[in-house]
Amino acid sequence: MKAEIITIGDEILIGQIVDTNSAWMSSRLNGIGVKVAQITSISDRREHILEALKEAEGRADVILITGGLGPTPDDLTKDVLAEYFQTHLVRNDEAYRQLEGFFKSRNREMSALNARQADLPANCTMLPNPNGTAPGMQFEERGKVFVSMPGVPFEMKAMMDDHVLPWLKNKYVLPFILHRTILTQGIAESTLYEMIASWEEALPDSVRLAYLPSAGMVRLRLTATGEEKTCKELIAKEEEKLRKLIPQYIYGADDETLESVIGRLLLERNATMAIAESCTGGYIAHRITSIPGSSAYFLGGVVSYANEVKTSLLGVDAGSLRTHGAVSEDVVLQMAAGARKATGANYAVATSGVAGPDGGTEEKPVGLVWIAVAGPTFTEAKQFRFVKDRMRNIELATQTALGWLRRKLEESPH
Amino acid sequence: MKAEIITIGDEILIGQIVDTNSAWMSSRLNGIGVKVAQITSISDRREHILEALKEAEGRADVILITGGLGPTPDDLTKDVLAEYFQTHLVRNDEAYRQLEGFFKSRNREMSALNARQADLPANCTMLPNPNGTAPGMQFEERGKVFVSMPGVPFEMKAMMDDHVLPWLKNKYVLPFILHRTILTQGIAESTLYEMIASWEEALPDSVRLAYLPSAGMVRLRLTATGEEKTCKELIAKEEEKLRKLIPQYIYGADDETLESVIGRLLLERNATMAIAESCTGGYIAHRITSIPGSSAYFLGGVVSYANEVKTSLLGVDAGSLRTHGAVSEDVVLQMAAGARKATGANYAVATSGVAGPDGGTEEKPVGLVWIAVAGPTFTEAKQFRFVKDRMRNIELATQTALGWLRRKLEESPH
Repeated sequence: MKAEIITIGDEILIGQIVDTNSAWMSSRLNGIGVKVAQITSISDRREHILEALKEAEGRADVILITGGLGPTPDDLTKDVLAEYFQTHLVRNDEAYRQLEGFFKSRNREMSALNARQADLPANCTMLPNPNGTAPGMQFEERGKVFVSMPGVPFEMKAMMDDHVLPWLKNKYVLPFILHRTILTQGIAESTLYEMIASWEEALPDSVRLAYLPSAGMVRLRLTATGEEKTCKELIAKEEEKLRKLIPQYIYGADDETLESVIGRLLLERNATMAIAESCTGGYIAHRITSIPGSSAYFLGGVVSYANEVKTSLLGVDAGSLRTHGAVSEDVVLQMAAGARKATGANYAVATSGVAGPDGGTEEKPVGLVWIAVAGPTFTEAKQFRFVKDRMRNIELATQTALGWLRRKLEESPH
Repeated sequence: MKAEIITIGDEILIGQIVDTNSAWMSSRLNGIGVKVAQITSISDRREHILEALKEAEGRADVILITGGLGPTPDDLTKDVLAEYFQTHLVRNDEAYRQLEGFFKSRNREMSALNARQADLPANCTMLPNPNGTAPGMQFEERGKVFVSMPGVPFEMKAMMDDHVLPWLKNKYVLPFILHRTILTQGIAESTLYEMIASWEEALPDSVRLAYLPSAGMVRLRLTATGEEKTCKELIAKEEEKLRKLIPQYIYGADDETLESVIGRLLLERNATMAIAESCTGGYIAHRITSIPGSSAYFLGGVVSYANEVKTSLLGVDAGSLRTHGAVSEDVVLQMAAGARKATGANYAVATSGVAGPDGGTEEKPVGLVWIAVAGPTFTEAKQFRFVKDRMRNIELATQTALGWLRRKLEESPH
């Protein structure tokens, strides 16, 4: 059972909006065992829509279409669908009554333009749209299913959840697809690949592995298809093997993040944390506080861009700053210790580095970052060499600092 | 001149990531007068890649491909491109040298797997990738241009800006399209619409207007197509009229951001700033420090999530916290004043609010945020009511605080 998604409209093609609909639909479809084979975004030109429909029909069993259902003349989807199925538009009484209700409940006049939204291709089943004026349409032709939905995200989502997904689950016997994503940090993709190569080679045929690298981390996605119980057992078994191979690099799974895992570990230990950020400029604090409930363990800290602030608020020794410079082991250790002292937190992370693009020297080039982690029984610092790009350096230093704190928390008893 | 974008990889099709690359590329291509006719996302299956290439070649002049260039066996793009052009992979010496340099500069060993990333189809021109290990590839075959780039956004973006876009501009005679985006903050889209309706109606036919709302701001994009000089004159004239209509809401244009404008205003005034953040949790500091050179005017400040930190590092009166609570006018004013005092900065912004999803009360619901701005001659606070969503509240409070600081800086002499 393969599906394709066709998105109609100029906004995506001129880069005005990001297509979040397709990712949402794909994720939902995968969740019920429907594989999405292709996502196509096209403009609302008649010939192009016809061509895309034909190509999709040749490849997929279910074709989901969004967009182009508005009341204005540049919205062509409905007319083109009628042409594609060699039929014509007829007034759908149920759709018309729902439109009347929609406008009445909002105390708005229904224009002739809006009334025409109740005219639908003669061969379709109408899908109600309680959130807007464009009804959805479902076609079953030549053994294939076509569904046309509005492009407005919350209208489309309600239509998918209320009609399309239940209908597909009822109509087809769908395979069970299980995804499990293991999250790693602190190891490069190629090194990781070599470390787990023999495990990967020994994976059963029904389990596939994908490497998904992003800033400072690599996600490993395991996918199993087949019978639900077997899938769950297979994935659990392989995950267990993987966790034994690289325990130090795995920080979580699926929707977890370093900041959510750190939050959980701190809560489990009834412990608190603080930050002292120079080159990361508040980004670590932002990541930590993006987690709901973080006020239970995050006390705060100091963003110390200026040396004077390192001295006055974190108690960094002015002599150390003069002798070693702000980007040094000595200073970053004092920053981490100072953050713990100033806030009373159990744990602290500190960063000091050259984010760039300017400010680099031969001795301390752009991308050089010192990171320190302090806890009740330790204060450690380490030097890292990241990249030339400012935002990437901020992100990588943050990811590295959070990953390190995570490991220290895991090691500490609770 | 028509372009198509092909995105290769499972992440988008299973809904794990949203395809932001294509919107960015489309926007950049439109900026130089290249129309994007279709965006296609496909899985990394050989047959499907071949089919998508063939279909795109039939429709477009330029085919831009992202993804599937990693070092692992599930990355097929390079091999399939070689097959598509009936050629084979050969070691590209320049790519190999760049790979060696990449690993050397990071003190990392280059694995055999990585070395293979320098093997490219014999008929391609190599595009250097200073930010990663996968070189880009450009093909000119049968009168069409194919470019294959990594899927990692910042690697792709650098390759587009440094190579692909300049090359396309040089190779083709492209129509002149002028975009000018005026940035507004502090006014809702519908209010803005009413304020500028008569100006919009009077726009000449060759100038189009688009409203682009995003978190806490509305961008107004003017587009003119035609002869370069006429376009520039038309847009300049309309921008001037618009600026007279809503001067207080316009903070910049095109690629400017509130944080870049604030940076410029502070530098012009030889002034410095600091932060005292509670509910925004470091995000204001992050935004400010994302600007290269911000260390010239940003001294730092305090992220004070816990009340004790507000007291100890910002000097907020414990009695005020008891009497009025942390989310109060009294406390946020003291936070802003405290940030100036603790850091010696000329200006400071402070936030204290209920970001949610928990922690709201009848009196202080989720979304209620106090913001203060302090300068050499003033300390002011104001209450805002944002939304129910935590990340949106953090973003909206930050945007509002930065917008307010920007207006105060504009008013102050230099």
